[in-house]
Amino acid sequence: MRQACLFACKKDAMTPEEFRKAAHELVDWVADYREKVASLPVRSQVAPGQVAGALPVEAPNAPEPLEALVADLDKIVVPGLTHFQHPRNFAWFPANASLASVLGDIVAAGLGVVGLTWQSAPALTEVEQVVCGWTRRLCGLSDMWNGTILDGASTSCMVALLVARERATGGSQRRGGLQAEESPLTVYCSADAHACVTKAALLAGFGADNLRPVPVRRSSRAMDVVALASLMATDVAAGRRPVAVVATAGTTATTAFDPLADVCEAARRHGAFVHVDAALAGSAMLLPECRHLFDGIEGADSLCWNPHKWLGSVLETSLFYVKDPASLVSVMATDPSYLRSAVDGSVVQYRDWGLPLGRRFRALKLWFLLRLEGTEAIRARLRRDIANAQRLASLVGQAPGWEVLTPVPLQTVCVRHIPLGSSLTAEALDRHTLAWCETVNASGLAHLTPALLDDRWMVRISIGAEPTEWADVETLWELMQEKARALG
Amino acid sequence: MRQACLFACKKDAMTPEEFRKAAHELVDWVADYREKVASLPVRSQVAPGQVAGALPVEAPNAPEPLEALVADLDKIVVPGLTHFQHPRNFAWFPANASLASVLGDIVAAGLGVVGLTWQSAPALTEVEQVVCGWTRRLCGLSDMWNGTILDGASTSCMVALLVARERATGGSQRRGGLQAEESPLTVYCSADAHACVTKAALLAGFGADNLRPVPVRRSSRAMDVVALASLMATDVAAGRRPVAVVATAGTTATTAFDPLADVCEAARRHGAFVHVDAALAGSAMLLPECRHLFDGIEGADSLCWNPHKWLGSVLETSLFYVKDPASLVSVMATDPSYLRSAVDGSVVQYRDWGLPLGRRFRALKLWFLLRLEGTEAIRARLRRDIANAQRLASLVGQAPGWEVLTPVPLQTVCVRHIPLGSSLTAEALDRHTLAWCETVNASGLAHLTPALLDDRWMVRISIGAEPTEWADVETLWELMQEKARALG
Repeated sequence: MRQACLFACKKDAMTPEEFRKAAHELVDWVADYREKVASLPVRSQVAPGQVAGALPVEAPNAPEPLEALVADLDKIVVPGLTHFQHPRNFAWFPANASLASVLGDIVAAGLGVVGLTWQSAPALTEVEQVVCGWTRRLCGLSDMWNGTILDGASTSCMVALLVARERATGGSQRRGGLQAEESPLTVYCSADAHACVTKAALLAGFGADNLRPVPVRRSSRAMDVVALASLMATDVAAGRRPVAVVATAGTTATTAFDPLADVCEAARRHGAFVHVDAALAGSAMLLPECRHLFDGIEGADSLCWNPHKWLGSVLETSLFYVKDPASLVSVMATDPSYLRSAVDGSVVQYRDWGLPLGRRFRALKLWFLLRLEGTEAIRARLRRDIANAQRLASLVGQAPGWEVLTPVPLQTVCVRHIPLGSSLTAEALDRHTLAWCETVNASGLAHLTPALLDDRWMVRISIGAEPTEWADVETLWELMQEKARALG
Repeated sequence: MRQACLFACKKDAMTPEEFRKAAHELVDWVADYREKVASLPVRSQVAPGQVAGALPVEAPNAPEPLEALVADLDKIVVPGLTHFQHPRNFAWFPANASLASVLGDIVAAGLGVVGLTWQSAPALTEVEQVVCGWTRRLCGLSDMWNGTILDGASTSCMVALLVARERATGGSQRRGGLQAEESPLTVYCSADAHACVTKAALLAGFGADNLRPVPVRRSSRAMDVVALASLMATDVAAGRRPVAVVATAGTTATTAFDPLADVCEAARRHGAFVHVDAALAGSAMLLPECRHLFDGIEGADSLCWNPHKWLGSVLETSLFYVKDPASLVSVMATDPSYLRSAVDGSVVQYRDWGLPLGRRFRALKLWFLLRLEGTEAIRARLRRDIANAQRLASLVGQAPGWEVLTPVPLQTVCVRHIPLGSSLTAEALDRHTLAWCETVNASGLAHLTPALLDDRWMVRISIGAEPTEWADVETLWELMQEKARALG
């Protein structure tokens, strides 16, 4: 007993009562932040090292009061952030963390459960199954699809390519691995596909020499399926094996849609796996009038879309659907003794549907979003954003010196400004494009992302932050004109 | 203008004021949950399909009130959970979601920022750098280590093996990939290593034939380094290339520690990469008296430990440290135009330190934990758990019919009960072991995990849930004896 007394210690961890008080303060802080976010500079104005330099290099021995944390949030953290929830955030993609979804994430963190097996958190698994069913139906997808929630589209793409690799090799990983394969396996994607496709293909071991960026059609920026078929035929003739095509529904730069039906048909001829990356655009499947953009998706083997983008779910909510869960599980499954339970075989084990073992209760943030907002309101918001993009495209298209460069199927408008009366070289035009975009961003009034289109810079206006109304787009448009004119 | 009016819609998303009210209700709900969790059955008592069956198959069109969500949480979700935050949760591993850490996660969700690049969220990147520095110092690790936060140990192991693969092949992914390599690459780990090591090796393309489970010493359960050296020599003699050794500091089944110094030395002879998986046990590096268990860790190339286990950070907080960030970045980096910014080259881009592109503000939950608890209180809690484990081991070891099967370096006690006077076959003893463990778990009063040790079942008692005091361990021990006696 003496030993026990020596070692026994007062548990100093925060009690539920202390949490209650502190959490009330912090949710007020969050609400205050969201109320004032429109008044902050969209892009952070701190210099590299400024945030780190303001913090001590060692953790404190003694507890600090909540006030110290809140003061640092106000003085150091918030000025060090680029605000994705700002109404004039038009950069990268809308990454809406709707407040209804934040509520679900609070519950997930508070419950502190861990999905290791079905048994370790049955409701975590089954609410995820149910919510993946909800989103499948909302998207008009058939019941051939079975879903799970992964962290993001990069991971989804990697998982898809690993499944494709193993399908093509009859399970090489159970034998000598990819390194023992004889004829090279090849992978295809649009030249405009997201960088994560290349990353996933390289990490899966295919090698850059065996990744084929397929040219896109100049007008639509969609994958040229004739070129795809030709590349595949050339590879086969050379003794290579086409194993996977990643088609993009809504590319990052221009929201172009690869022709899914044709891609699937071309892939099928060689038994290649088709993964559809609809990370941003997937939300548009909720709108019947947009479904035609996804025609042919039922022919794919897997697909990914991220409700943590436009739809409004807090990161990380990336839906990953497969037609054949058994083949996914055969690649990902482990069965150590410490994870077995009496119900094995009769339940879904989501650890076998992706890379990590343990998982948070991720479904709650999507469940809360869909239930507290209701799908009609979400659809109305998506339609608002598409209409705002159309309206902006129309204004830009009519303005002297401005060009809308690509079709606007959804909420992204790709533009360039060519100073009137000038005959700039391509390089000078690039400099002008980057310059006016930077002056808009530096103003803090709005935030845009430049990107390359056929190796020349343009500017993407990605509309769809949750609070973005037409007035915000109008303010942006005025700002763009003012800044470009001043430089032109 | 007509078009705009037609499409314009009322934004129905939750306002900050509505959030404020709802979030106050939910943090009270979380506090209430934590207050009552000790009174709930530890292991969920629902049957497969019960949770899913209680929920509608379609998402609602119209918004639902918060009360409907809360009612479902109470009636459907909570009974469907196995409670990791329960004081008598001794299953798998302590997965403490300390309330101080929950606060940080609330802020992370509320801010809704996205780490795509340094520029997209400077404070997200720099607080992560700072906190990874804090934990490095707390662990007594040298400043040769550079850290980031990944989702879990499975991913960390996979990233490590990918870096090892590319280091050994001089960057095969930039050429023909792993499939173009001539002599097979081989990977080594303890036979007692976590299942995620096998999974990572297979997904990285090495193949099961090239993964070498190294025997463990019977008494310590630590990797037999003589066997490791011999396996490597045999592989080299046969024209194979040893590329990586995964050493475990604290195995899942028994918290055994591979001899890191010897492993690193053996690996170095063949130029193999060493990754240390200290997922659970890493927290013990905070205790100077436990550091000897990690002797030699400085010789490794990468290491992982999960503050979302014993330390108390909310999932997903897996620290991943590397000695040579440049080699990590060379394997993981992408550079699409839409992610470039003026500060590139002078800042850390965490997207190039792992698999996903976007990241949550993960560092906040660890930052809040360390600051609001203070490191002395955390150390005291870890010491309490180790002392409780030693005390239990001593009681079990003295009890007739009971055996402590392996050393107890930390907080896990591995036991078996052999009914007195019986001479059971190994199979009958297995059945008895699983039976008494199941009756304990079915009681809802405590939760334990059975696991195989040399192909025979034993029961792990993993002590260290944040609220677990000696009285809880004592209750468990009485329960074990009662149930085992009843069956014996």
